[in-house]
Amino acid sequence: MHFTINKNYTKLQGSYLFAAIGKKIARFQEENPDVEIIRLGIGDVTQPIAPAILTAMHKAVDEMGHAETFRGYAPEQGYEFLRDVIAEKDFRERGCDISADEIFISDGAKCDSGNLQEILGPGNTIAVCDPVYPVYVDANVMAGRTGSFDMATGKFGGVVYMPCLEGNGFLPELPAERADIIYLCFPNNPTGEAITKAELQKWVDHANQNGSLIIFDAAYEAYIREEGIPHSIYECEGARTCAIEMRSFSKKAGFTGVRLGFSVIPKELRADGESLNALWLRRQGTKYNGTPYIVQRAGEAVYSEEGSVQVAAQIDRYMENAALIRNGLIDAGYQAFGGVNSPYIWMKTPHGMPSWEFFDFLLTHAGVVGTPGAGFGPSGEGYFRLTAFGTYENSIKALEKIRKI
Amino acid sequence: MHFTINKNYTKLQGSYLFAAIGKKIARFQEENPDVEIIRLGIGDVTQPIAPAILTAMHKAVDEMGHAETFRGYAPEQGYEFLRDVIAEKDFRERGCDISADEIFISDGAKCDSGNLQEILGPGNTIAVCDPVYPVYVDANVMAGRTGSFDMATGKFGGVVYMPCLEGNGFLPELPAERADIIYLCFPNNPTGEAITKAELQKWVDHANQNGSLIIFDAAYEAYIREEGIPHSIYECEGARTCAIEMRSFSKKAGFTGVRLGFSVIPKELRADGESLNALWLRRQGTKYNGTPYIVQRAGEAVYSEEGSVQVAAQIDRYMENAALIRNGLIDAGYQAFGGVNSPYIWMKTPHGMPSWEFFDFLLTHAGVVGTPGAGFGPSGEGYFRLTAFGTYENSIKALEKIRKI
Repeated sequence: MHFTINKNYTKLQGSYLFAAIGKKIARFQEENPDVEIIRLGIGDVTQPIAPAILTAMHKAVDEMGHAETFRGYAPEQGYEFLRDVIAEKDFRERGCDISADEIFISDGAKCDSGNLQEILGPGNTIAVCDPVYPVYVDANVMAGRTGSFDMATGKFGGVVYMPCLEGNGFLPELPAERADIIYLCFPNNPTGEAITKAELQKWVDHANQNGSLIIFDAAYEAYIREEGIPHSIYECEGARTCAIEMRSFSKKAGFTGVRLGFSVIPKELRADGESLNALWLRRQGTKYNGTPYIVQRAGEAVYSEEGSVQVAAQIDRYMENAALIRNGLIDAGYQAFGGVNSPYIWMKTPHGMPSWEFFDFLLTHAGVVGTPGAGFGPSGEGYFRLTAFGTYENSIKALEKIRKI
Repeated sequence: MHFTINKNYTKLQGSYLFAAIGKKIARFQEENPDVEIIRLGIGDVTQPIAPAILTAMHKAVDEMGHAETFRGYAPEQGYEFLRDVIAEKDFRERGCDISADEIFISDGAKCDSGNLQEILGPGNTIAVCDPVYPVYVDANVMAGRTGSFDMATGKFGGVVYMPCLEGNGFLPELPAERADIIYLCFPNNPTGEAITKAELQKWVDHANQNGSLIIFDAAYEAYIREEGIPHSIYECEGARTCAIEMRSFSKKAGFTGVRLGFSVIPKELRADGESLNALWLRRQGTKYNGTPYIVQRAGEAVYSEEGSVQVAAQIDRYMENAALIRNGLIDAGYQAFGGVNSPYIWMKTPHGMPSWEFFDFLLTHAGVVGTPGAGFGPSGEGYFRLTAFGTYENSIKALEKIRKI
């Protein structure tokens, strides 16, 4: 007799995509210490935290140093001061009927992406875009909702993959085969393409008609530039009965190392007679212990008059990079998508080169790091993701190096 | 057809213990706005963060404000600067052979308590002390490792409960019925009692002989005052092949609102041919995105020359409260345990009064909040937990009010 492991873990393929890339870079740098590497891969930001946010954090640190203002355990759902301003600024000002008690503060959308499935039954089927942010699939693999990985197709058994290719404008089509849980991310990671409100409405209607749950990842909402692109799924009619939305401060305010995000679970969202809002509250109450006070005050400052101007300016700078990279690639004869309402540029590899091969090729010949499309799913093969999160100087430099190859 | 919920959640009883207490207090305060309430319940600290730690946090905030020193995504396992100092100070200086790559930084021991079970098979049986910190059991209920709750016994089916009562000095006896996963917490929450190294060695031997995994919660390690009490399970021979240890900065340095902890998973720990260290690395890489940089720098400062002196002084003050409460209760004719190597005092309710009744009684007649023993399991009935985390003044005041009843 011996205790056992969760054998679903053995179905996972290789290590987590970005960990694998990190190792490849480290090895290359060790072997080529003189080569300057420009990282447009993992999607980490480079601009420092905005001044108004720093001021708020210093103030919060000071508060922690005095007994009168010290804060211990935070409410597991998050402080009201932060949930209130989010409900107002991110939702009600956009005409979305979301209240503060439908918002759950967390340490990031990646964690919520991984954890939200816990409150759902093991027998639910899932549908994902292909290519896709790996966490949605891997978290469900770990939970046992998938079959084994098929090397021939690059897919896990039992998962509905919705191809997003040039032919359909990188927008998934409504699945012929019904799925219980549908993961959508718009503006999309990795393709960088956005969805119109009319198109997203079709998904909401589909979910309501089919008893499906949409888990909507709006981590890149702040990068939307065009009219008619929904910032929240709750802009669509009926979303309150079929959708959870996840948000992140990582790309909105450069919080990749500060750690803040939230999920929205409307009260109407129910299954088996139970409220998903209540289930998640219970999950967080039991297995989470609140987001740091200092970090929640930092989040509040993002919405302040000064803070919102400062983070908007940061996003503008990243979007300059996005335009630069996208247009530069197109000028150089590559096919490139995205980058208009998102910080990601999705380029076709030249001459149909496999994407991991292109990764090595680009690293070796240009010192530029991107993310191989195949790492996001079988339909990502032949594509490559570049991010706008570098500095302007590095974005120019990377482009020049790519052109010279 | 409709998506379904995780039905294991419906087995859970009431809301999370401390959330339930919070609601009771809020209602009482609303009805009695003039009564001063002294909270010796939830175990939240009251002393502010120590100066050396504040300095480190301010410095880290400043670093986040400059592109040259800005930190984005942290390594999922935690920064080396923190893992190195932990390995050295908490383990190697105590003769425990633990290396930095066996340490996983997290946002707290509660989260790790809840999440660690994910890497283990669904069929594992669990054994817990009774009374017990509710998270160990509830996380396993959610994961489907238990049967239903039996109202008559106050127990979940399929769980081995190990009674800790006055008769056995509040120390569990080796279970007659083998369990795959054994949760132990010493110094104990809620009883406040510690275990000797010789006694803990018996558990390590038992686990190795029976192929069991011990999940050892050492969150209160910093409160150990007596010789012969192990600070880490790795002081015991053979623990590297059978034990995971969880640690917290919440009580060690007042980080309940700062959020920092870690788990130790030795490389020798294996099941089904897989390394638990590698499985947890994969879990954290997929579903966690690192602990905030600022918080990890705060953690590092806890081990600095200045920081360690300052947090030791804080703990001394809490332990003065512990002695005051324990001795005061005994002087007043109550039976009280714990409080010597831990911040918790475990008192017997007078005249065998049910513990939730005593909670209401104490709140109404003395304005003092404690935690009903029954909230920790059936063997907690007839007991009541008080914490030493209040101020000295409030501890004295609470004692006076209890005496006057």
